[in-house]
Amino acid sequence: MSYQPRIQDLMFCIEHLSQWDKVSALAVYSDHDLTVIGAALEGYAQFCAEQIAPLSFIGDTLGARFDRGRVTMPGGHVQAYAQFVEMGWQALTHPVEFGGMGLPRTVGAAAEEILNAADMSFGLCPLLTDGAIEALLLTGSDEQKATYLEPLIAGRWSGTMNLTEPQAGSDLGRVATKATRHSDGSYCISGTKIFITYGAHDLTENIIHLVLARTPDAPAGPQGLSLFIVPQKLVNPDRTLGARNSVNCVSIEHKLGVRASPTAVLEYDNATGFLIGKENCGLEYMFIMMNAARFSVGVQGIAISERAFQRALAFARSRVQSRPVNGQSKAAVPIIAHPDVRRMLMRMRSLTEGGRAMAAATAGLLDLAHHQEQPEAVALAEFMVPLVKSFCSERAIEVASLGVQIHGGMGFIEETGAAQHYRDARILPIYEGTTAIQANDLLGRKVLRDGGTTARRFAGQIVETEVLLAQGETALQAIGKSLAEARRAFETSLDWMLETSHQDIDGAFAGSVPFLMMTGTLAAGWKLAQSAAVAQSALKAGKNTAFMTQKIATALFFAQHILPECTTEKSRITSGAQSLLDAAFLE
Amino acid sequence: MSYQPRIQDLMFCIEHLSQWDKVSALAVYSDHDLTVIGAALEGYAQFCAEQIAPLSFIGDTLGARFDRGRVTMPGGHVQAYAQFVEMGWQALTHPVEFGGMGLPRTVGAAAEEILNAADMSFGLCPLLTDGAIEALLLTGSDEQKATYLEPLIAGRWSGTMNLTEPQAGSDLGRVATKATRHSDGSYCISGTKIFITYGAHDLTENIIHLVLARTPDAPAGPQGLSLFIVPQKLVNPDRTLGARNSVNCVSIEHKLGVRASPTAVLEYDNATGFLIGKENCGLEYMFIMMNAARFSVGVQGIAISERAFQRALAFARSRVQSRPVNGQSKAAVPIIAHPDVRRMLMRMRSLTEGGRAMAAATAGLLDLAHHQEQPEAVALAEFMVPLVKSFCSERAIEVASLGVQIHGGMGFIEETGAAQHYRDARILPIYEGTTAIQANDLLGRKVLRDGGTTARRFAGQIVETEVLLAQGETALQAIGKSLAEARRAFETSLDWMLETSHQDIDGAFAGSVPFLMMTGTLAAGWKLAQSAAVAQSALKAGKNTAFMTQKIATALFFAQHILPECTTEKSRITSGAQSLLDAAFLE
Repeated sequence: MSYQPRIQDLMFCIEHLSQWDKVSALAVYSDHDLTVIGAALEGYAQFCAEQIAPLSFIGDTLGARFDRGRVTMPGGHVQAYAQFVEMGWQALTHPVEFGGMGLPRTVGAAAEEILNAADMSFGLCPLLTDGAIEALLLTGSDEQKATYLEPLIAGRWSGTMNLTEPQAGSDLGRVATKATRHSDGSYCISGTKIFITYGAHDLTENIIHLVLARTPDAPAGPQGLSLFIVPQKLVNPDRTLGARNSVNCVSIEHKLGVRASPTAVLEYDNATGFLIGKENCGLEYMFIMMNAARFSVGVQGIAISERAFQRALAFARSRVQSRPVNGQSKAAVPIIAHPDVRRMLMRMRSLTEGGRAMAAATAGLLDLAHHQEQPEAVALAEFMVPLVKSFCSERAIEVASLGVQIHGGMGFIEETGAAQHYRDARILPIYEGTTAIQANDLLGRKVLRDGGTTARRFAGQIVETEVLLAQGETALQAIGKSLAEARRAFETSLDWMLETSHQDIDGAFAGSVPFLMMTGTLAAGWKLAQSAAVAQSALKAGKNTAFMTQKIATALFFAQHILPECTTEKSRITSGAQSLLDAAFLE
Repeated sequence: MSYQPRIQDLMFCIEHLSQWDKVSALAVYSDHDLTVIGAALEGYAQFCAEQIAPLSFIGDTLGARFDRGRVTMPGGHVQAYAQFVEMGWQALTHPVEFGGMGLPRTVGAAAEEILNAADMSFGLCPLLTDGAIEALLLTGSDEQKATYLEPLIAGRWSGTMNLTEPQAGSDLGRVATKATRHSDGSYCISGTKIFITYGAHDLTENIIHLVLARTPDAPAGPQGLSLFIVPQKLVNPDRTLGARNSVNCVSIEHKLGVRASPTAVLEYDNATGFLIGKENCGLEYMFIMMNAARFSVGVQGIAISERAFQRALAFARSRVQSRPVNGQSKAAVPIIAHPDVRRMLMRMRSLTEGGRAMAAATAGLLDLAHHQEQPEAVALAEFMVPLVKSFCSERAIEVASLGVQIHGGMGFIEETGAAQHYRDARILPIYEGTTAIQANDLLGRKVLRDGGTTARRFAGQIVETEVLLAQGETALQAIGKSLAEARRAFETSLDWMLETSHQDIDGAFAGSVPFLMMTGTLAAGWKLAQSAAVAQSALKAGKNTAFMTQKIATALFFAQHILPECTTEKSRITSGAQSLLDAAFLE
């Protein structure tokens, strides 16, 4: 099934949900207007749909191969990546001074969705490179920037994040990889890192590993970690490639999904590394990378959802089976006519568009936070990142699962392709911080730490949307009513959290994931509600009738079928903590 | 990870939830007492845990193999199946007069859980054979019974159900396989059947295919289908095996899960078949088989859930990661100490035990309905079957997905085993009638047809439990309160359905799956609530303290974390139909 990037919806989100007026008013982005951006996205979309999308099934079937220390990508990936580099797509959002195109994150997020919908396994390589670029830009020395940024931004080299070790997953304080300082200022790195995405491959001439390790005198725990650049091949002073560094791929994993993305076990055996920034600040730097990556994982969730939706929609339109339940026809009809198939499709669609809407809003906040450093925008952007990560990733599993279901028995056959999305999506709520880690981040750092100030501001902004909707047509009023109910459930839960956290921290955290999922659902419903208001104005002006009508229908479905879940989450949070914690028998 | 059958919980369910006093009072089952049954289940459990469970991972890795028309099972399956036959386990629930052990379905369901938890791919072969036995017992001629039942019940032959064709999935009216009568009374069968579970394998010396086909003058649609026995090898008058019939396996499918269960494409090319019962009654007979099989698929869901839960629990106890959020320890702790890991485990456990409880209650009803033919028991049993099928199968996906999540990154690695459950579970809401088909069955045939009488009786029985709980301790009162709220949500939805179905049949069926899921959740919560009441009495009597304490904790968790979902489903049903049906743009 061919993939058709949803340019119109992506542009709608940029234009109406990302605070585009403010983002485009930033000096750094003032060169870009929406028409040019739309054209650029169209070009990228064409490349991804034609060159990358066909690799998805092949890559899944063949997988990345490991043979005596070397990893080779399945057929077609090397050529497609070479084209990706040639067309300069890695440069999209990076600074012009290092060869980038200088587009804002707002646009980058749209491009990221398109690439990952085409093939998430492929998309992971540029995603990790983006993270490495981000970390170097913010924390690298001038010398390091001069050495590494240009080839990374060109896509000629790729980047990796090396955090996990067998005993250190979510708990990075347990990282044991050692770093000893040489007299020349470089470091000697030794240890084993696992789950390294694109830790070894044959797409680029060099791989820049960013590695968390511990110097001999470092304090125990997460405060004793430093971040190092460990290039696969060392770089000569004239920027040419030198000797191979002592980092070896020992094996790659046999995974449930994203099988064309090699997940490496890397052995560092007295490898040469270069400290980034200061010793013992590694975790802080890594979080810079990780926050960008977390947002991107949310976008991958939207991407998988969109692809799964398109596949299911095409099947539902063509598969003829059973008469309609209303008796209007004696003949069997395309299954899209059956109410429950419509329900599943609408659920897939509204979850996907809800995720896209909130991601666009968050991207705008990230751009504003990055360049203005205005505290409120920073706080709200940081509040939104775990929502995007978790809502979009958990919902991607649900959407992909519905996609399988719509295909019936065919969905269980691998050749159909629906099952691959179900497998691929399963990593999303795990990597770059599990859903529980995101929930701790949201509740601990983004809600409790400021006494709920940002959370209340978030709720206050939703109230503004409710007021707007109350003045609209019937559908908008209905959306506003559901939104208000969900927002009140959120506020009740927030009050409960703020109070409970003082006397019963376990009780509060027992509801951390329900709180995260509720907040994410509310945020997505809110942004779709805003979309509906925009759509109504457009309809009144006679613009884009079909698209705008759909926008309202999708928002209404979300309001009536998804937002009510917030009330259930409220029950879980406010009356379910004790039954959970008392279940002591589990130990 | 080794699998430990949950004998204590299974026996608790038989004793307290299946109306065992009435079932064991039936003349046909009066030989069996609980002690003997417990011992028999222990024996079966030991066999399954030791001989079958180790095959699960091997079977998934190697898969069934197809080579030039022959299907071979992966290593170990042939030997294990031979042992299964030798020990006579296929005979468990079948009539003594044909060599069966004559145990009730109530016990059979427990055994079925154990076998499928050990290995669902393996369990599918006996499951299909059971279905063929059931159909022959109820509709076969004396001659057919004499020919086929003994070897099927012994497990020397296996059975299959041949419904699906490429153009006929959920819509069996489109079946095109032809059956022409020979002068000797046998039929000539020609056509292609797909998705035939265990349609070809090397476990048994013969395979008895039950095939839906259409005679030349049959009416169009589902009313023109007849059911035929088509043995893989013809049977001589002296019961020895004769010539191979003209039915060939053309290929087997490459599937997302249950990979050791061969899913065959069968080509019938003028094969010899024998009519079961009367012409044009095939669908009715097939539904006999299918109803039994639908219940069994629900039990498979419980089985997968139990296995996934045990695996996640073992991991959570041994994996040490991060300090506790309450600051009680400076050291990292086993992750089971973290509130959200407990939440996930409790969710897995309560969904699993909830499914088991409702399946046991339904099995008891099926036994009573089968032997007493008392109309109320029949109606309630038929009401419960789609609930068991859909609640347990949809929840199995959720439970297996949580199992992956608890393992973190390890969960995405196939060798861990958690991912296999996630893959295997995905077929459950599809085969033997998708969730939408179950929802149509529940709403159309079991609710609307009798004007809600059975549904109201179901609600009335729940009220009785609420009254009982109101007299109990605090935990029981809390369970009763949540149960009452969920039951009221059900009644509101029921009223809405009864009213809406008169004027807007599409609107009613737009909520059919939410109604099914709500009713299933309510039924499971109700049976767990009853379990809690039993457990409280047992605790007062000082019996089984740890087990009974857990029972109450699980029921309370279900009441506070799962039952509130019924309220959300109510919103979807009663205010979400229009937003779904109006989304005309999907076409």
